[in-house]
Amino acid sequence: MNVEIIAIGDELLIGQVTDTNSGWIARQLNHIGWELTKVTVVRDRGEEIKNAVVEAFGRVSVVLMTGGLGPTKDDITKKTLCELYECALHRDEKVQAMNDERFVQKGFTMNALTRDQALVPDACEVIYNPVGTAPVMWFDRDGKVLVSMPGVPSEMQYAVSHEVLSRLRERFNDHSAVRHATCLVKGITESGLAILLDDFENALPPFIHLAYLPKTGVIRLRLTATGDDEARVETELNRQFDKLTSLTSRYLFCREDTSLAGALGAILKERKLTLSTAESCTGGNIAHEITLVAGSSAYYKGSIVSYANEVKTELLGVSAATIAEHGVVSLPVVEQMVKGAQRALHTDCAIATSGIAGPDGGSPQKPVGTVAIAVACGDKTVSKMWHFGKNRETNIERFTHHALLQMLDLLCPQE
Amino acid sequence: MNVEIIAIGDELLIGQVTDTNSGWIARQLNHIGWELTKVTVVRDRGEEIKNAVVEAFGRVSVVLMTGGLGPTKDDITKKTLCELYECALHRDEKVQAMNDERFVQKGFTMNALTRDQALVPDACEVIYNPVGTAPVMWFDRDGKVLVSMPGVPSEMQYAVSHEVLSRLRERFNDHSAVRHATCLVKGITESGLAILLDDFENALPPFIHLAYLPKTGVIRLRLTATGDDEARVETELNRQFDKLTSLTSRYLFCREDTSLAGALGAILKERKLTLSTAESCTGGNIAHEITLVAGSSAYYKGSIVSYANEVKTELLGVSAATIAEHGVVSLPVVEQMVKGAQRALHTDCAIATSGIAGPDGGSPQKPVGTVAIAVACGDKTVSKMWHFGKNRETNIERFTHHALLQMLDLLCPQE
Repeated sequence: MNVEIIAIGDELLIGQVTDTNSGWIARQLNHIGWELTKVTVVRDRGEEIKNAVVEAFGRVSVVLMTGGLGPTKDDITKKTLCELYECALHRDEKVQAMNDERFVQKGFTMNALTRDQALVPDACEVIYNPVGTAPVMWFDRDGKVLVSMPGVPSEMQYAVSHEVLSRLRERFNDHSAVRHATCLVKGITESGLAILLDDFENALPPFIHLAYLPKTGVIRLRLTATGDDEARVETELNRQFDKLTSLTSRYLFCREDTSLAGALGAILKERKLTLSTAESCTGGNIAHEITLVAGSSAYYKGSIVSYANEVKTELLGVSAATIAEHGVVSLPVVEQMVKGAQRALHTDCAIATSGIAGPDGGSPQKPVGTVAIAVACGDKTVSKMWHFGKNRETNIERFTHHALLQMLDLLCPQE
Repeated sequence: MNVEIIAIGDELLIGQVTDTNSGWIARQLNHIGWELTKVTVVRDRGEEIKNAVVEAFGRVSVVLMTGGLGPTKDDITKKTLCELYECALHRDEKVQAMNDERFVQKGFTMNALTRDQALVPDACEVIYNPVGTAPVMWFDRDGKVLVSMPGVPSEMQYAVSHEVLSRLRERFNDHSAVRHATCLVKGITESGLAILLDDFENALPPFIHLAYLPKTGVIRLRLTATGDDEARVETELNRQFDKLTSLTSRYLFCREDTSLAGALGAILKERKLTLSTAESCTGGNIAHEITLVAGSSAYYKGSIVSYANEVKTELLGVSAATIAEHGVVSLPVVEQMVKGAQRALHTDCAIATSGIAGPDGGSPQKPVGTVAIAVACGDKTVSKMWHFGKNRETNIERFTHHALLQMLDLLCPQE
């Protein structure tokens, strides 16, 4: 079953908010064997919303809509849906009661605008929203279903998980399956890999598809299988995945769809090793990536984010003389930092970074984008200087990515 | 001038990669006074890409396309563009030479697929890409311009900043201006604010528009002005922004478009206060949010990410007896952590968190989503327990948001 999303909001189109809802919904749809085939992001304008709906219903029977349901004037989704479905608004007493209670609980005062959150189009079935003031609206006409949900991620997620998915399944009585299997490789280029896998790809059955998702130094290989026979989809996907991992075994370091930090965590856990970090320029982002992984407390003990030099000397035991001689962004400093982290946090392995994320702080010798990264496992330490770009946010991301990759390289060297 | 984006890639529609390119491009377009009016995310399918282009050109004269330009089989954008513009591919010698040199520098071996990155459609003008193997392609036909760019953010960003924007300006000789002014308020609901601002909103000139962007406890208010007369747009925007900030002064804590951490940083800098963090469940994410702000080293000294209890006792001086008596997720523990951070990192202010992000580790008394947060400034400490949901990633985000908010509340209380 194919689904389209229409995401509504000026904030998405001036780049103030990133649409993470669509990706989340896509993953939930895939779990029930449905596919998201298109996302359209439109402004808070009635005509644009209506056109998007009409176009989407020309292609699919299910449209999920997010956003534009707040109490303020810029949000016009509800009014627009009334125009589309040629109906008026009426007050839903249950929504009203839920919102009243919600406001009492939170100690807020109900006002005219919030009160109007209980107005709903006559043409829809209301799905009650216990986690926010805007109800979810289900429209079903001419065999086509439109579900309008709040854009606030937690409210949308609640609605999808608790109501919308199961209602859609029931409504369309559809059981076609989509399954994915993913592995991660490093030490080979995307095109090198494509040549290695040419015969494999050509021999794939038509319902299985291979995709390459490269990210500096790491390539995610994803097999997707689609079909009506769930058992056959699963069996054939597993068979092809075994072939794929065997063909790429020299470069393979992870057999599941996880982040770089997740892959590193799996290796540490398997080898019963512990990890800590000492971060300067990455400012806690490596720790954040590591701790995003559920269960990371099994191997990760913590980080000393040493943004100030005195923290490097006092808590990590970096010598002030080394800083004075080599500068704080240098291999000797990160080598001392990584040893300091192993010692202060009592871990087998450690990662340390010191660099210039920008926009200021660069010099001709060490421009913005320079970073020193050291990784250690037991007595073995590897330190390297890297050079990236000018953008602070991108630099922090890249420094983090390369620090994790350098740690992985130490643990799983490629010959 | 209105622009649409077509983002191409199966990975975007199964939720494996989030489209951050469109938001970035939107911000660059706004800077030159152009507007992004729609984003369409489509799969790597020729027909779907072609339909999206035809539809977009029915609405606007400029379409920016991202993605689908890798060397592997799943990427079919180039082939599709040849079909759309009824032309063949030819080898561009300059792209070939640049890619050859790039591979030599990186120590990679050129292969058939990478070699074909130098194939370009006859109908396009090539914009050379010094930061990747896929060239940017500029198509100009019947007064409509389509620019196809790589989906890799750094390559797309390089192309837009260095070539595409200036070429588009020149091509369309358009100078209409769009300006935004944003401020942040707290301590009032969205609808309470809407009522407070009702007269103001109704009196706004038709070319100025007010938007509300709420996020748990904080509302971002954005005025957008559009027009041909740049000076008038600026003057009137400033005049209305002054009115807005004066009307909301009781709730206002920031007069620029920045993150919560950015707003906090501005206050710390102004008051010459320093900050440190002691993070358990947030695992470095507060430090990361703080250090994303350029210039944060002026007030932020660092963090002790104490994921393991021994780090809490050894580096932050939390008493083992307190942990045993109250549990690690408790007000007494975060109060000791926040004091420990102030002491160990020598700062005026500090933030400490200890909680259960999930999915495991919850108990009936302290379920997943429970977090204790303490903030301190000098001798003043405020600690609170909060309860959120079940999702680990969302919990880490919310814990972080509320920790920053709690610190802001201590520094700027609302009566």
